Amino acid sequence: MIIVARKDIAADGLDHIRERVEALGLRTQISIGETSAIIGCFGDDALLGHVPLLSIPGVDSIRQVISPYKLAARDFAADRTTGVQVGSRKFGGKACLVAAGPCSVENEEMMKATGHAVGMQGAALLRGGAFKPRTSPYSFDGLKDEGLRILARVRDETGLPVVTEVLDPRHAELVAGHADMLQIGARNMQNFSLLREVGQLHRPVLLKRGLSATLKELLLAAEYVMSRGNMQVVLCERGIRTFGDEMRNTFDLAAIPWLKAETHLPVIADPSHAAGRRDLVAPLSYAAVAAGADGLIVEVHPDPGTALSDGDQSLDFEGFSRLMRDLKVFAEAAGRTV
Amino acid sequence: MIIVARKDIAADGLDHIRERVEALGLRTQISIGETSAIIGCFGDDALLGHVPLLSIPGVDSIRQVISPYKLAARDFAADRTTGVQVGSRKFGGKACLVAAGPCSVENEEMMKATGHAVGMQGAALLRGGAFKPRTSPYSFDGLKDEGLRILARVRDETGLPVVTEVLDPRHAELVAGHADMLQIGARNMQNFSLLREVGQLHRPVLLKRGLSATLKELLLAAEYVMSRGNMQVVLCERGIRTFGDEMRNTFDLAAIPWLKAETHLPVIADPSHAAGRRDLVAPLSYAAVAAGADGLIVEVHPDPGTALSDGDQSLDFEGFSRLMRDLKVFAEAAGRTV
Amino acid sequence: MIIVARKDIAADGLDHIRERVEALGLRTQISIGETSAIIGCFGDDALLGHVPLLSIPGVDSIRQVISPYKLAARDFAADRTTGVQVGSRKFGGKACLVAAGPCSVENEEMMKATGHAVGMQGAALLRGGAFKPRTSPYSFDGLKDEGLRILARVRDETGLPVVTEVLDPRHAELVAGHADMLQIGARNMQNFSLLREVGQLHRPVLLKRGLSATLKELLLAAEYVMSRGNMQVVLCERGIRTFGDEMRNTFDLAAIPWLKAETHLPVIADPSHAAGRRDLVAPLSYAAVAAGADGLIVEVHPDPGTALSDGDQSLDFEGFSRLMRDLKVFAEAAGRTV
Amino acid sequence: MIIVARKDIAADGLDHIRERVEALGLRTQISIGETSAIIGCFGDDALLGHVPLLSIPGVDSIRQVISPYKLAARDFAADRTTGVQVGSRKFGGKACLVAAGPCSVENEEMMKATGHAVGMQGAALLRGGAFKPRTSPYSFDGLKDEGLRILARVRDETGLPVVTEVLDPRHAELVAGHADMLQIGARNMQNFSLLREVGQLHRPVLLKRGLSATLKELLLAAEYVMSRGNMQVVLCERGIRTFGDEMRNTFDLAAIPWLKAETHLPVIADPSHAAGRRDLVAPLSYAAVAAGADGLIVEVHPDPGTALSDGDQSLDFEGFSRLMRDLKVFAEAAGRTV
Repeated sequence: MIIVARKDIAADGLDHIRERVEALGLRTQISIGETSAIIGCFGDDALLGHVPLLSIPGVDSIRQVISPYKLAARDFAADRTTGVQVGSRKFGGKACLVAAGPCSVENEEMMKATGHAVGMQGAALLRGGAFKPRTSPYSFDGLKDEGLRILARVRDETGLPVVTEVLDPRHAELVAGHADMLQIGARNMQNFSLLREVGQLHRPVLLKRGLSATLKELLLAAEYVMSRGNMQVVLCERGIRTFGDEMRNTFDLAAIPWLKAETHLPVIADPSHAAGRRDLVAPLSYAAVAAGADGLIVEVHPDPGTALSDGDQSLDFEGFSRLMRDLKVFAEAAGRTV
Repeated sequence: MIIVARKDIAADGLDHIRERVEALGLRTQISIGETSAIIGCFGDDALLGHVPLLSIPGVDSIRQVISPYKLAARDFAADRTTGVQVGSRKFGGKACLVAAGPCSVENEEMMKATGHAVGMQGAALLRGGAFKPRTSPYSFDGLKDEGLRILARVRDETGLPVVTEVLDPRHAELVAGHADMLQIGARNMQNFSLLREVGQLHRPVLLKRGLSATLKELLLAAEYVMSRGNMQVVLCERGIRTFGDEMRNTFDLAAIPWLKAETHLPVIADPSHAAGRRDLVAPLSYAAVAAGADGLIVEVHPDPGTALSDGDQSLDFEGFSRLMRDLKVFAEAAGRTV
Repeated sequence: MIIVARKDIAADGLDHIRERVEALGLRTQISIGETSAIIGCFGDDALLGHVPLLSIPGVDSIRQVISPYKLAARDFAADRTTGVQVGSRKFGGKACLVAAGPCSVENEEMMKATGHAVGMQGAALLRGGAFKPRTSPYSFDGLKDEGLRILARVRDETGLPVVTEVLDPRHAELVAGHADMLQIGARNMQNFSLLREVGQLHRPVLLKRGLSATLKELLLAAEYVMSRGNMQVVLCERGIRTFGDEMRNTFDLAAIPWLKAETHLPVIADPSHAAGRRDLVAPLSYAAVAAGADGLIVEVHPDPGTALSDGDQSLDFEGFSRLMRDLKVFAEAAGRTV
Repeated sequence: MIIVARKDIAADGLDHIRERVEALGLRTQISIGETSAIIGCFGDDALLGHVPLLSIPGVDSIRQVISPYKLAARDFAADRTTGVQVGSRKFGGKACLVAAGPCSVENEEMMKATGHAVGMQGAALLRGGAFKPRTSPYSFDGLKDEGLRILARVRDETGLPVVTEVLDPRHAELVAGHADMLQIGARNMQNFSLLREVGQLHRPVLLKRGLSATLKELLLAAEYVMSRGNMQVVLCERGIRTFGDEMRNTFDLAAIPWLKAETHLPVIADPSHAAGRRDLVAPLSYAAVAAGADGLIVEVHPDPGTALSDGDQSLDFEGFSRLMRDLKVFAEAAGRTV
């Protein structure tokens, strides 16, 4: 159940509503937008029938949210303009934000070179994995703490906020201490301990869709994070696993407009993992933005041929430069900027 | 094996090459482009080693085509500018062609209304099913012969060429006698009798990808048609069957650039069947064109709420008008027209 | 709607009911079992309300069949003991019937050798393809008419009834003239023209599940055949297409008990195509029978290493002999015979 | 690379080999069977070329293991008879072991009732979830610590060892302190932090296949556990996610014999989650055992209609009793016991 109040309701008014609801044993969550404020009520909804909420000054209406996700549902957001702030940029605004960088943080030099190069081309964030999930226990799994420190230093030098993956709930605080945005990878989309942990931090979360997750499951995973108080979630379509054998994954483009209709959370795409092939990254990127994506996360490496992981799908600096140039044209066609 | 000859090779020269190759027991197929001519040779390639082909005037080179499809492979086409002509329009040129119309031909009046409406908005073809494949034997399966006659009359009145599905090899000639383009539906992508039959006709073929067909299988299905002499094939991505349950199918957008890289055949998208939902047709269309599609096939109905089939995914005239208006912007961003 | 009558209702009584129902514009189909007779009524069910059917002597009850398939639904069969007769054997009785033989009819000698060998081991039918569906137009696609004649001669010599695939509605009568059972392959499960055609013949049909067909779609495909009057349909689970890449297909074993609960039609399994690997054929066969399958169709070749198609998944005679020996043990555990 | 030594090689001999290998910077893992001992060597294999290993007394041969998993590969095991011991029973021996119990530990009374009932019918283990992974953050997620304590008390009373899921690496020791076997659920199959954690404990692990995991990925997940020193891993096929919509998951039966051929680890099946329907649990169980499974894990609840989770797929005590009775017959047909 959500209570919709007028935007100009006084802070006292909101407090009053919250107290009344919480006195019934329900939990509340408040979203303040430009035209209204919304108080989400969680618990035994039926109890709300005992309180004359509509007679409280400033309360406009009370609505049942029937989707299984409450906080992530589009109905919940007072308006969509809020977005998710990372550094000085915002996911979900007019601009499509591009996060770019290598699969793995390999060393400081390559991260600096990449940070400067992608920043100059208009990337909004630098990506790079310090803790790497690898299918085999014998593969390179990242520089770990040292990788985090490199990321933090490159952020300081380039001014680009950094996004990196967290794999283990015990590392969540550590990663949050170095990175500006926490990535939950596809394999961990239903690692509920990890979701709850990042839900207690004050860091924006980039939540990737699992390989065989339905879109409802993705929204419920976001709900895990949000239900712990961290409302700063950006969703990411990165390809699903199907019978198709010509590409690494099947890019489920329609997930983007479907999610945009269903949730107020920003939605971005990862064309690199979806395709697994460098030459398809650009057309998938243009398509994602044409379909309404709020941004992209793209693998870029100074020398893809020598990358420790995901070399086949990484762009070099020149390829990224061309991508950004043409992406601007499609963003403009979509009424957006890059 | 393909033999590449200079474009200006005399007709006599081509005949000479063909005779030499066929004398070895191989079959040939010729493609003439703007810069070269290509002679495809099918059968026991090794025999070609016995003929001094490179010494024939006008022969530039001999190349092995290692993909399992020969005529559909990009290497085969002398150049890509050829395209597939339907009426006065051409799939595979600068313009993205849009085929629009109802799922089923329901009656003459609605077809005329639709033909005029979509033609005015810039559609290049009128679509409509006379023979309908239906999962249940108890569902409406089309007006059949009468549907074909309606299509032909509406084409004559509106000037729009018509595309309609053929389901049965025994109907292929009949359908070809009324329609400008023959559609092979997803369920029949590997109906080899039907593919061979339309391969013997002189009508362009719109070949839809099967629900669980790999892209290689799609190209081999095209090869069935082409190996019978009909080179006029347009491929269509229309969504695949996956675990996803929020939409009718999963739109495999990456198939479009993958196919464009692999074959010289034009590639279009069917956003209506992919999504199964009216509100997703526009974003999927924009994405398809951004990713390089040569056109679209879209379901449009005068009154989707009363449609005999596929009403949920059909646009009304106003929706189609908005789609075409915005599609132009994305086509332009892609360096194309509509 | 189905009308359930007592078994001992006179032929006159059944005729009377049929006439009353057909006078309303509905079609009828009659199934006579050991304990009751059932009259299926197809068309506008509501009209039946105007006829006092229950007052007709011998009519026991009237039931609504709410599944989308009517004739295939378990409710329709007067009882399950009917089964599908092929030669002197019956699918759906106590015995699990095994059809065995090569993928393709390669020549008369190998068919005779195989027929004698598998017959001696207890196979109930001989399988072998005369018309072969092939993904590529350049692959061997069967001996066609000559293959049919070979099959007929081997049947005459060995006494084993033969099952072979029909690909084209124009060949249905020809194939039915030589074979005892008509196979509809996975790729043609929704080739509705072909289904209708075999629905008009008096030959049992072996209907294979499509690669990505749901079980409801399989039953609706059977309904196409049955709605044309041919009730002799045996269903076959042969593996579906999934993300799995270790085997040719994913054997959907649970389809067997699901179908047995939902339909009165016999259900068999094809472990050879499901696995695509010789060493898995035996365990899949045992499992199918343990789960309630009414039989198997297995690829057997005198010399799998030289087979023109599907050699990797074919058993040799010795392998088939071992399979049959152990299968008997599992059939007995399931209360069946082989 | 693995070094195969004669079984009777002295402990000194093994130590000597290990020292030589480790001196090169490689890690080692030893498996001692009834006929031979195997020393697995991990790291830069090429270095082994510098040591004359074959001249060490007792060394029989050196083999390259080319599969991506080393310890899980069938080649690694000195022999298959080892199995995985849980309490007084062993997975991978002649007996098929059945773990049975409710989805969730709901209270002590129902656990005791279930423990006694399933134990009496021949179950080898009691299952029950204390920490439950739930798609929605608002669903019941288990009694946690209290659930563990209940399990331990019921084990003490009934004598049945208990298996329960661990979700979070921080709980691994706690769970291992109460349970006899640690379950890694399907959603956590690639939770590498968790796999590494249970790899350091001395408790057998029941590793369930992920919803869209290939079999190679399952074996690599086992390899994560084993590479940390815990070789006691039992694999479990529990259904995969496909396009099928009639059942909860698609039971990939062929995974069982495929895995048995590829690894020395025991393999069991979970028919309850695969089917999601009570009436299919028995046929899937029989099929699993017929195909070579080393056991089952089955959901049983005193009153499935009131279960807090998974009620639709839980057997009641009578259903479980029938299952066990008939399972014995199929186990015997497979040359096994229950």
